[in-house]
Amino acid sequence: MTRKNCFYAQSGGVTAVINASASGVIRTAAQYPESFDTVYAGLNGILGALHENLIDTSAIPASDIAALKYTPGGAFGSCRYKLKSLDEHQLQYQRLIEVFAAHHIGYFFYNGGGDSQDTAHKVAQLSSEMGYPLQCIGIPKTIDNDLPITDNCPGFGSVAKYVAISMLEASFDVASMAKTSTQVFIMEVMGRHTGWIAAAAGLASHCSEIAPPLILFPEIPFEVEKFLAKVDQQVKTYGYCTIAVSEGLRHHDGTFLAQSGLKDAFGHSQLGGVAPIIANIVTSHLKYKCHWAVCDYLQRSARHIASATDLEQAYSLGAAAIEYARQGYSGIMVTIERTQQNPYDWRVGMTHLNQVANIERRLPTIYITKDGFGITDAAKEYLLPLIQGEAYPPYQCGLPQYQLLQQKLVAKKLPPFQE
Amino acid sequence: MTRKNCFYAQSGGVTAVINASASGVIRTAAQYPESFDTVYAGLNGILGALHENLIDTSAIPASDIAALKYTPGGAFGSCRYKLKSLDEHQLQYQRLIEVFAAHHIGYFFYNGGGDSQDTAHKVAQLSSEMGYPLQCIGIPKTIDNDLPITDNCPGFGSVAKYVAISMLEASFDVASMAKTSTQVFIMEVMGRHTGWIAAAAGLASHCSEIAPPLILFPEIPFEVEKFLAKVDQQVKTYGYCTIAVSEGLRHHDGTFLAQSGLKDAFGHSQLGGVAPIIANIVTSHLKYKCHWAVCDYLQRSARHIASATDLEQAYSLGAAAIEYARQGYSGIMVTIERTQQNPYDWRVGMTHLNQVANIERRLPTIYITKDGFGITDAAKEYLLPLIQGEAYPPYQCGLPQYQLLQQKLVAKKLPPFQE
Repeated sequence: MTRKNCFYAQSGGVTAVINASASGVIRTAAQYPESFDTVYAGLNGILGALHENLIDTSAIPASDIAALKYTPGGAFGSCRYKLKSLDEHQLQYQRLIEVFAAHHIGYFFYNGGGDSQDTAHKVAQLSSEMGYPLQCIGIPKTIDNDLPITDNCPGFGSVAKYVAISMLEASFDVASMAKTSTQVFIMEVMGRHTGWIAAAAGLASHCSEIAPPLILFPEIPFEVEKFLAKVDQQVKTYGYCTIAVSEGLRHHDGTFLAQSGLKDAFGHSQLGGVAPIIANIVTSHLKYKCHWAVCDYLQRSARHIASATDLEQAYSLGAAAIEYARQGYSGIMVTIERTQQNPYDWRVGMTHLNQVANIERRLPTIYITKDGFGITDAAKEYLLPLIQGEAYPPYQCGLPQYQLLQQKLVAKKLPPFQE
Repeated sequence: MTRKNCFYAQSGGVTAVINASASGVIRTAAQYPESFDTVYAGLNGILGALHENLIDTSAIPASDIAALKYTPGGAFGSCRYKLKSLDEHQLQYQRLIEVFAAHHIGYFFYNGGGDSQDTAHKVAQLSSEMGYPLQCIGIPKTIDNDLPITDNCPGFGSVAKYVAISMLEASFDVASMAKTSTQVFIMEVMGRHTGWIAAAAGLASHCSEIAPPLILFPEIPFEVEKFLAKVDQQVKTYGYCTIAVSEGLRHHDGTFLAQSGLKDAFGHSQLGGVAPIIANIVTSHLKYKCHWAVCDYLQRSARHIASATDLEQAYSLGAAAIEYARQGYSGIMVTIERTQQNPYDWRVGMTHLNQVANIERRLPTIYITKDGFGITDAAKEYLLPLIQGEAYPPYQCGLPQYQLLQQKLVAKKLPPFQE
């Protein structure tokens, strides 16, 4: 077995723990110098490969690589850039292979969600067709938790923990204020197509006798009358009502509520934000005072309250990608397998990329209560293990000591890429 | 000195640490049984006194009282209810005295912001005029940090820590995405009249080489051209721009931007939210992709990342209120005195209620940079000590173990109050 270099890239929306996967890849590769030479990280994901912007991770101090385990965001830069189909733009794929060949890259590790696994799959196919030996391994990452086969997706557990804790804390707040002020609190969370993140808000009332939050799932078309009746019932029962709403909440015709046509004073269409729309509906019909929050990037970058389970899984999958590569695997994605429910136990596994590319795992119907506004015990049983443990980062000056990396690029060997 | 009962109430918007002050009052009173009999807490603040809804804190298990130190929200219920002026509604004040007399209450502890200190001041005056012996002591609490004399207000340090950390984390996120996706991130924070909270976002870049966040203070009238030029400059310099905007940002004519006339599809005026307005301005003029978050209640209830300094001060002021009461003081508010800057040191002090009632402490001009978009070193020197230390709560099931109290009411002795 000859030593080859590795290419690693981060893709799509970043998470609180994607850098832990990077750390797992880089540190584990270093344990097998007979197989793996240098790990090159793509600057801004796959764009780094196309434009030959390769970060030499061996030039980064070991302490900085270790610090990746507690640093949110994507340390090498991520991108939202989908490679075109093979037929449409074969040149892109050929360019990747040229760059890999020029830098003696024999391993391709792609850390991302559904689209990224599809890209990894295509690169694997093309390298095989072109006769260029390249082992392609996908490492799952998505807060949306919508990849199939794997028990869950690194990044999701930490968002779930953030969302559950935030809803718990806001519930304590609004419960104190409800007598003379705010009765309804609305929190908007991510998850445009699936309600995994929204579901996590339902954990808030698991160990505390707060009012169970109402959840507005993207899977359940919004019915205003039914919703208002439920809110009114919560306020009359508990004195207050908390609501988690998915950014992807839709009308029956499939259009997003967030595209309901908000306009500013100048008549410009207003950017997203379904929480204020829900607040407006509640206030105008029920006259309850509302407050609303939009978590946006805070939920997926909240490394300060990351799930220890999520962190461990993210790191382990990075490490496992190297182990599988060493065993000669290609065209696979590493996975988490739930081996036991109570107490929760898991191990690393793998699946073929054609089993995951372009397949979206929906929130199971049995995870949503019959009334459509809550989560079932089955959902809690699935979700709770993923938020266990608090992986606190180190602090300095009262702030987490997150590490920005020096991104030293390798000298280019090829002419610039013409897209 | 005869034993008397105490009345304690929480007022106005709650915080992550107001219950720590309550815990300080209750536990310290128990140390002096010769002076203090039972601490009665008002259910929903001063309303609890008016309506004779008194919670007997001696019936609450000691472990629950201890748990208040790590439980956000207002454990006894707060209220937004301002007593009218003495001239306008003397009956309200007389009712308070009647309730206090009926329950042998000799001490009045009021835990709140500017309005609440004004109330405490009036109650002190009236009890004196009516010849009813009542020692009135204010305990400061406000995330707005706008009470004079005291170095800072319990509740603020924890919000400042949350806002600084959230901005730091979001900066790491957007920095990763800026190449192909979001370039501008906007985070809306509380503070309708003063920019103390917005200023805290400026701490995000204190120990990290992220782009310094732009801050839109309520003190500085919004100038769209100047703002857009600054955003453009940040993006061109750093690749991205983060912005903290105060909910109280105003136009030159004094009107709030959040009241700029957003309307939903039905033509209803839209509730608050200055972040989406700023996002719209950036997107429509500069074409940068924006994301925005609204922290709302999450910032003031985030006990999971409370400042240890803030927590200790909140508890100490509750304890100090009892100590001053024992020494015979009345008509005072307990305060924090900064005795040393480097390293930070502080002690408990006090001031007369007439020095704080209805006086708002503004953010000093020297805390804002000349361009109006940042904080100065002087501001950092003031703010940094307040966010030191992480006072983590205990966890169970992956969630903070916050304590809801049983609110057992004392038997009423008076007829209902007719408002």
